[in-house]
Amino acid sequence: MAVYTEVSDDDLQAFVAQYDMGEPVSFKGIAEGVENSNYLLQTTKGPFILTLYEKRVKPADLPFFLDLMEHLARTGVKCPVPIHGRDGKILRELCERPAAVVTFLSGMWPRRITAHHCQELGVALAGMHLAGQSFPGRRTNDLSRAGWRRLYGQVGEAAEKLQTGLHAAIGKELDQFDWEWPKELPRGVIHADLFPDNVFFLGDECSGLIDFYFACTDFLAYDIAVCLNAWCFEPDGAFNITKAARLLTSYQSKRPLTPEEKDALPLLARGAAMRFLLTRLYDWVNTPAGALVKPKDPREYLRKLNFHREVTSIAAYGLS
Amino acid sequence: MAVYTEVSDDDLQAFVAQYDMGEPVSFKGIAEGVENSNYLLQTTKGPFILTLYEKRVKPADLPFFLDLMEHLARTGVKCPVPIHGRDGKILRELCERPAAVVTFLSGMWPRRITAHHCQELGVALAGMHLAGQSFPGRRTNDLSRAGWRRLYGQVGEAAEKLQTGLHAAIGKELDQFDWEWPKELPRGVIHADLFPDNVFFLGDECSGLIDFYFACTDFLAYDIAVCLNAWCFEPDGAFNITKAARLLTSYQSKRPLTPEEKDALPLLARGAAMRFLLTRLYDWVNTPAGALVKPKDPREYLRKLNFHREVTSIAAYGLS
Repeated sequence: MAVYTEVSDDDLQAFVAQYDMGEPVSFKGIAEGVENSNYLLQTTKGPFILTLYEKRVKPADLPFFLDLMEHLARTGVKCPVPIHGRDGKILRELCERPAAVVTFLSGMWPRRITAHHCQELGVALAGMHLAGQSFPGRRTNDLSRAGWRRLYGQVGEAAEKLQTGLHAAIGKELDQFDWEWPKELPRGVIHADLFPDNVFFLGDECSGLIDFYFACTDFLAYDIAVCLNAWCFEPDGAFNITKAARLLTSYQSKRPLTPEEKDALPLLARGAAMRFLLTRLYDWVNTPAGALVKPKDPREYLRKLNFHREVTSIAAYGLS
Repeated sequence: MAVYTEVSDDDLQAFVAQYDMGEPVSFKGIAEGVENSNYLLQTTKGPFILTLYEKRVKPADLPFFLDLMEHLARTGVKCPVPIHGRDGKILRELCERPAAVVTFLSGMWPRRITAHHCQELGVALAGMHLAGQSFPGRRTNDLSRAGWRRLYGQVGEAAEKLQTGLHAAIGKELDQFDWEWPKELPRGVIHADLFPDNVFFLGDECSGLIDFYFACTDFLAYDIAVCLNAWCFEPDGAFNITKAARLLTSYQSKRPLTPEEKDALPLLARGAAMRFLLTRLYDWVNTPAGALVKPKDPREYLRKLNFHREVTSIAAYGLS
């Protein structure tokens, strides 16, 4: 659930006056995104999303994220488009925080995932990867291997409390990544957090992608690995090979995977599971008891990691 | 901040299909109201608010609240209007909770209160009171004197922790209310919780009232007393007589107060301060340490109560 910075009437008026976007007629905090304060701002010209960037986002990264959204939208990807002020600027300040306005994207994220959703996701993800190839911006993935080492150091022995032997097991896995992680695979802009709540649908059709605030430059196939974990396991923990096959096949209909990418996918999927295991462990350690928002169970991602450890080829994901 | 019940795609589709309100195109939880889950539901026919009533609202009271909103809107009060399903019903069930859809009300609540806002409030409040006179429904105010006694019993000695002597002082004040509380004053439907976040403005004009889930049958002047406390004190605790005078004068332009109401207003204002002192004490006692939502300081209402104890006539509120 989002943090909310209270925006005063005068501050909002002064902010909106810097855009050619009509007069505000409604302004409501919405429960979307956990990192920032998001508001649905309706003006006489239509609905917009106003975001105040809270402390977890580095201000220096914001131009990358916003320029990327603009580039993707211009290249045909359905996603929110940043609005330029009268001065031409996208990024400005509100309530002492960086702030931007983007267009409102219609659609709802799916609560119950079907194989059809996975098929639509594959097409949308490949489309984003292709459109990203012409984007000049670069941003290191700070939640890749070096970031995992850092988080591993921070969660420390707390992992043991969750499950005996977990601390050592993570360490061993990280060592193995250092040896086996691919050196070179097709790279480009990845979303890096494409969970179901970041993919909107109108009826059966994907209407767009949101929340590019983890986007970075990395192996394109790593983004697929994140999606395999986030979309293709059932609530009871079982891997759904039909969903995976639909995701991968539809992805390949727009961007075929290289043999190296196919070979690397099980390892990338383990890495992607490690990333969410470690950030969930971090949240689990750092959430005070009695807090309203319960941290998500890190063990869900430990089970996913263990599933991929048993995978020897992409056939386990439904591809021949 | 609101609670959120997660509504699945299928549940939402099935729910919306019971109305002639178009197809859903967006569905977002909004940070409005603390008692219920509120969603902004946009359909092909426009924006609506969908509310799931959480445990703090008694299901038996819902027909009163919803019928009232419909009656008020029909009588010219600007407020959300409940939408009837194809079966004629307003109230139905979603995710095992009572649920209803109302129209979307444009406007924003004022974060920085001006005397002009208080003037608009007075007119809107009197208009609601007049429109309520023809409403046949009745609901006891369960947060009046009997409710205060009940809360007093529940917060018990915890009041002492907040301020030495407070427990006894509240008891003495409640005894005094038993002796002095008016027996008869003009009665009708009151809002009973008309804080700034329940009053919307478009530019300088009041665009409507929301959140009727504390509405009940009580002295009309008690509603004014709630507003005096919620709108006419500055953030530093000082009473702003100009705001009070604008509120009362504009109220009287639509419904003049009787001499008995004017005489009773200081006592009613003490009672209204007691109501919020006690519910805040209750929340303060019952919120776990480390919770994301900090309970509001009960002492703000103790200071307001003490202010009204010194008032001997309505002249202190700016009326001659």
